[in-house]
Amino acid sequence: MLIKPGPLLAQIDSPDDLKKLPPKDLVKLCDELRQYIVDNVSVYGGHFGASLGVVELTVALHYVFNTPHDQLVWDVGHQAYGHKILTGRKETFHTNRMYKGLSGFPKRKESEYDAFGVGHSSTSISAALGMAMASKHKGLDEKQHIAVIGDGAMTGGISFEGMNHAGVSNSNILIILNDNCMSIDPNVGALKDYLTDITTSPTYNKLKDEVWNILGKISKFGKNAQEVVSGVENSIKTFLLKQSNLFESLNLRYFGPIDGHDINHLTSVLEDLKDIKGPKLLHCVTVKGKGFPEAEKDQTKWHAPGKFDKITGEIFKKAVETPQPPKYQVVFGETIVELAKENDKIVGVTPAMPSGSSMNIMMKEMPDRAFDVGIAEQHAVTFSAGLATQGLIPFCNIYSTFMQRGYDQVIHDVCIQNLPVVFCLDRAGFAGADGPTHHGAYDLAYMRCIPNMIVSAPMDEADLRNLMYTSQLPRDGQAFTIRYPRGQGVMPEWRTEMKEIPIGEGRKIKEGNDLAILTIGHIGNYAIDACDMLAAEGVDAAHYDMRFVKPLDEELLHEIGQRFDKVITVEDGCIIGGFGSAVLEFMADKGYQPQITRMGIPDEIIEHGSQMELHTECGFHPEGIFETAMQVLAVAGKTR
Amino acid sequence: MLIKPGPLLAQIDSPDDLKKLPPKDLVKLCDELRQYIVDNVSVYGGHFGASLGVVELTVALHYVFNTPHDQLVWDVGHQAYGHKILTGRKETFHTNRMYKGLSGFPKRKESEYDAFGVGHSSTSISAALGMAMASKHKGLDEKQHIAVIGDGAMTGGISFEGMNHAGVSNSNILIILNDNCMSIDPNVGALKDYLTDITTSPTYNKLKDEVWNILGKISKFGKNAQEVVSGVENSIKTFLLKQSNLFESLNLRYFGPIDGHDINHLTSVLEDLKDIKGPKLLHCVTVKGKGFPEAEKDQTKWHAPGKFDKITGEIFKKAVETPQPPKYQVVFGETIVELAKENDKIVGVTPAMPSGSSMNIMMKEMPDRAFDVGIAEQHAVTFSAGLATQGLIPFCNIYSTFMQRGYDQVIHDVCIQNLPVVFCLDRAGFAGADGPTHHGAYDLAYMRCIPNMIVSAPMDEADLRNLMYTSQLPRDGQAFTIRYPRGQGVMPEWRTEMKEIPIGEGRKIKEGNDLAILTIGHIGNYAIDACDMLAAEGVDAAHYDMRFVKPLDEELLHEIGQRFDKVITVEDGCIIGGFGSAVLEFMADKGYQPQITRMGIPDEIIEHGSQMELHTECGFHPEGIFETAMQVLAVAGKTR
Repeated sequence: MLIKPGPLLAQIDSPDDLKKLPPKDLVKLCDELRQYIVDNVSVYGGHFGASLGVVELTVALHYVFNTPHDQLVWDVGHQAYGHKILTGRKETFHTNRMYKGLSGFPKRKESEYDAFGVGHSSTSISAALGMAMASKHKGLDEKQHIAVIGDGAMTGGISFEGMNHAGVSNSNILIILNDNCMSIDPNVGALKDYLTDITTSPTYNKLKDEVWNILGKISKFGKNAQEVVSGVENSIKTFLLKQSNLFESLNLRYFGPIDGHDINHLTSVLEDLKDIKGPKLLHCVTVKGKGFPEAEKDQTKWHAPGKFDKITGEIFKKAVETPQPPKYQVVFGETIVELAKENDKIVGVTPAMPSGSSMNIMMKEMPDRAFDVGIAEQHAVTFSAGLATQGLIPFCNIYSTFMQRGYDQVIHDVCIQNLPVVFCLDRAGFAGADGPTHHGAYDLAYMRCIPNMIVSAPMDEADLRNLMYTSQLPRDGQAFTIRYPRGQGVMPEWRTEMKEIPIGEGRKIKEGNDLAILTIGHIGNYAIDACDMLAAEGVDAAHYDMRFVKPLDEELLHEIGQRFDKVITVEDGCIIGGFGSAVLEFMADKGYQPQITRMGIPDEIIEHGSQMELHTECGFHPEGIFETAMQVLAVAGKTR
Repeated sequence: MLIKPGPLLAQIDSPDDLKKLPPKDLVKLCDELRQYIVDNVSVYGGHFGASLGVVELTVALHYVFNTPHDQLVWDVGHQAYGHKILTGRKETFHTNRMYKGLSGFPKRKESEYDAFGVGHSSTSISAALGMAMASKHKGLDEKQHIAVIGDGAMTGGISFEGMNHAGVSNSNILIILNDNCMSIDPNVGALKDYLTDITTSPTYNKLKDEVWNILGKISKFGKNAQEVVSGVENSIKTFLLKQSNLFESLNLRYFGPIDGHDINHLTSVLEDLKDIKGPKLLHCVTVKGKGFPEAEKDQTKWHAPGKFDKITGEIFKKAVETPQPPKYQVVFGETIVELAKENDKIVGVTPAMPSGSSMNIMMKEMPDRAFDVGIAEQHAVTFSAGLATQGLIPFCNIYSTFMQRGYDQVIHDVCIQNLPVVFCLDRAGFAGADGPTHHGAYDLAYMRCIPNMIVSAPMDEADLRNLMYTSQLPRDGQAFTIRYPRGQGVMPEWRTEMKEIPIGEGRKIKEGNDLAILTIGHIGNYAIDACDMLAAEGVDAAHYDMRFVKPLDEELLHEIGQRFDKVITVEDGCIIGGFGSAVLEFMADKGYQPQITRMGIPDEIIEHGSQMELHTECGFHPEGIFETAMQVLAVAGKTR
């Protein structure tokens, strides 16, 4: 389906084209850009509300600044659709988030306008500051460095670290706080309250006007603006300091709040700010989903709605005829509530992912026992450790890729102290369309090297429930990691009775004699298919679902070491240091010498695509496992 | 040497004893406690300045609060000597930081008064908040939760994450900001400037008096204090909000600044604060090294001075007769300056460790090219990524254990984007007396699983220089990790000419026929000794210094795989997933089947002690390598 841009947008292939437009056309261009995003996302899917919210900001930034010479860093980056469309990717935008298509996030390899690759939140200030200091080192005094960061991302600790440094850096950095009170879910925390206070305070609105009046006067002085600035600087600063201002406390000059949907005001403000040296922050208030009423109303639902009818606002559901397996996320969300009803010690912790993780089910049913701590993975882990010291059992649910942010806390605050925190790592393995920044590829490797840590992965819904059940039973310390993928499991009838699984116990899915296939987690279902294909070729493969990467099921592994001289391990995690390596270590330590073939994510950055596309690319889809087994046996002379 | 406490301190074996003292005796007790710390540290070594700075605070906290029922969390924890002495560890305090002795940090296993184990900074707010929320869950409304955190630790992002959550938590948490303007080195950043402004502002001093006057009145109301508080709360708050207050912005009630050395004022203030519910922050100004003039004057030097003469203030140096090898730290510090003089693109980044890492040498010689970014590892890494996008070559020097804090940024901001940042991981392997929180045990495992990452470790000073030289040569992306231990190398004449090492090239240290010993890094020197011992027993061992964990030297490994059926790998890193596992993976992938014995740090928490004590405990000291080799061969029937 060909989506046509409006007449103004049709002429724009780069910010140079944009700059040719007279200011009076910008409102219309914003309308067209917004419509183009609606048209595309409604048909092809993708993130939605965030990009609609920054249409005006995007146009204004490229209109005023000299990108790509000036460095524009989008925080998180799922709001950068307008940016992509304006910077030469309009024609390819329909491939957004598709396999081999455009990335859903800014990406350096994709465009020189993408100054910094993003995906995780809160990195933009640090990155832009690095760029700004590099420019200073090179004497590029006029070069501008802009970080656009949401109020949700601002709660991530690295933002604060970056501001603390920026405030004393005397560098040319402009932080634009895109304040829409939302992450994917509504923002939480003291910072949100503070920003709400600011934007509704008459003092601040008065302040805003006065500051801009002064700035307005400055601009008129033209060339000498900078000198004038140094003259009035102190008075502005003194004035601002009378307010209770978080950012001024950190020595960032604070401007705003201003309406982030008033394109003409935005351009003139940005024009003025260009002349003001040093670290500064512009506070823009925007509405997530702006211009699409349904999206403005239910911002969480419309964060990434999937395909929809752009006229009626109806979100299309895939038609399904038979009962479908649930998402692992739903199983987690329902099961923690079931468990918490029986066990008063259980509490839930999520860093800003209540809907994504389904922790929102518990937050609704037991609001006092489930905590959304904001985009703050480090805090989420140490907070959980604190809860555990008092005898509670925190289920700390963090996406696998985001757990990288809490790694030190897992080691230092949980495992060194041997505290029984439960870590549920959602979206382990390939995240799919979100791509490499979001793949949970490394967790098996980085978790299993930590002492006092149990690492498990369920092959199906029943096992997820059983592992969750087991993880909350009394034990002598030890953190308990349960990692599971994004998306559907395999059991339409998933509300199974829960039972304890002895820690470290795997299971034999299928007997066999020719070789052993060892799997971990959901990917074991692929091996079931592969075994069927092998059987059709007369190959009798055994299949073991190891269930635990740590501790390993030594009884099963001894059996395997004794019975098989060909072993294949399969995991949807990095091939270096992961599950397969754990099996290698066991065999080496015990003196077994089977030939072990490890399948998993190779040592390279795997881009975005559907999970099956990426599994196929990495060769551990069912056919890939089948073929590998055939090759292993062929080399051994056991098959054709 | 027996160190005798003063007469008051001699009576105190627990906070219960302390509480028996009348208020008038507290000043004298503080003097005695301070003297006891001086007496001990001067003879036995350890951290010094930090504990002297919080003597009054320590006494006041245990005097006023009901520890251990009330939860007292010390951030970082090297200031907790007074706390240890007052809580039943006076008699054993001389074993502080010694092998099998007291830990230099609070540690849950050691005492019920140590509410939370620490070592890394900035965790206290999150931990105490977790405890506070747990108490709320249990209905323990009167239980108090106190986090004592320095202004340096406050710059770590997790502190901000914790405050953001605390501000909306309605929990019983008291944050005590111990503001002494120092980490190990002087603090940097906007927060420091802000705190300096606050403490010197007449408005704030006026504020302080007014608030305490109000609070003084409240206390007199006794039982009804809480009701009165809710009455005056708003007026206090309104008053406070007139100020530009960072903490009030985050909805923490701010009190102070007060003099942290006025014990009587401290106790009365803390007594008052007990009655005020909700999250609150008390700003105490203290002097690091208080009471020991030399330590007050040069706070960095006296952070952990080693043994000294407590009368003259002379710090004892070990007498050395022959020229000694330098510390790896010095080699790093001198070499980066040498390189930076030749290569204008090189810049240095340290998160608050200029003296520990020796980055201070570059900061002095090239102040514009070396950045101390504060306690902010996440920011340090992403800031380095930003610098690298502009073509600079950042040497980001972070202790191995602290790099755990920047792990996501290494993956997400550096390696996914394939940026050529150089990571120098100092204090890799065992940190020694600092213990498990500071051991750099996991870096080989957690770094090598990341794509676009080179991982290396020098066996001696010349190799450190060569690796640093190599890392700054142009290459096509790829981060470059160089990890090296704390302490001395082996080359008194270390200023060798630098030369390029082809990436991934190891070297054969010794030919041999009976078995191959593969080492990585400094620990290779142990294998040299072990080979000598083996030779004395008639065993002809080959020794390979692999130098790179990634990429591995495949040529050498093919040779090893073809020639040897017994291989031993040795590393001073975790045995799970590390260097030895990398060798296992290679051998399995290439179809070699030597018997591989991996030596390294076992899968458990190793406590503190000297490096050699800990290496011996783990069995990879020279004799341990020797014995393992003998066993391997004995099993194979090659020796007795």
